[in-house]
Amino acid sequence: MTEPRASVNLAHKLAQFDELWTQKKIADLNDYEVKLAKLKGEFIWHTHEDTDELFLVISGRLTIRLRDGDVVLEPGELFVVPRGVEHCPVADEETAILLLEPAGVLNTGDAGGPLTKAAEPLD
Amino acid sequence: MTEPRASVNLAHKLAQFDELWTQKKIADLNDYEVKLAKLKGEFIWHTHEDTDELFLVISGRLTIRLRDGDVVLEPGELFVVPRGVEHCPVADEETAILLLEPAGVLNTGDAGGPLTKAAEPLD
Repeated sequence: MTEPRASVNLAHKLAQFDELWTQKKIADLNDYEVKLAKLKGEFIWHTHEDTDELFLVISGRLTIRLRDGDVVLEPGELFVVPRGVEHCPVADEETAILLLEPAGVLNTGDAGGPLTKAAEPLD
Repeated sequence: MTEPRASVNLAHKLAQFDELWTQKKIADLNDYEVKLAKLKGEFIWHTHEDTDELFLVISGRLTIRLRDGDVVLEPGELFVVPRGVEHCPVADEETAILLLEPAGVLNTGDAGGPLTKAAEPLD
């Protein structure tokens, strides 16, 4: 059997959902997941002790607050939050991002709480 | 000491080099590397036996030839070539891509030959 070989169009995938702060998986890369999310407002401070986390802004504007200063990302800009570095994503306007990190990493890291949500597949 | 926390602007990084078929590292993510490359023409058929490889087109148009059909990527589209799948990138016009795979993966995979080149840091 030949598997279908389909590209992933980021804009088309983003058009498939409206929920904020919910990671949608769009591809696997070995044991990593490529995910999309839409953000607006302020998340919570949290840390991923065991992994770096890549943020790439597709549209909007994302501020990643860090304890030693903010990183502001415009479309076409990326930042890798190093493992163990506490951070808090904030978006004043609705912002679409691509996320990359190992499978199973939770959005709230060590902080937990009611905003914790596993990534969901997006077909 | 506080490390500087700098975002990576893909367009600015792409403006820093002209060489074709040379992977430029722009970020680390755990033991993975985020790289940029400019492509034009046809590469060689090769396989990465031990890893998937992510291609995201930033500008231009990339055809990834596979033995069971082509995948064509426009800007904002990505594709993960699964490990063990032979592929040959082709770009009719100059095309800029973001690549993601484990550190140390060579561009020509199992094929080797004169086009083999390790990724270079881009500061």
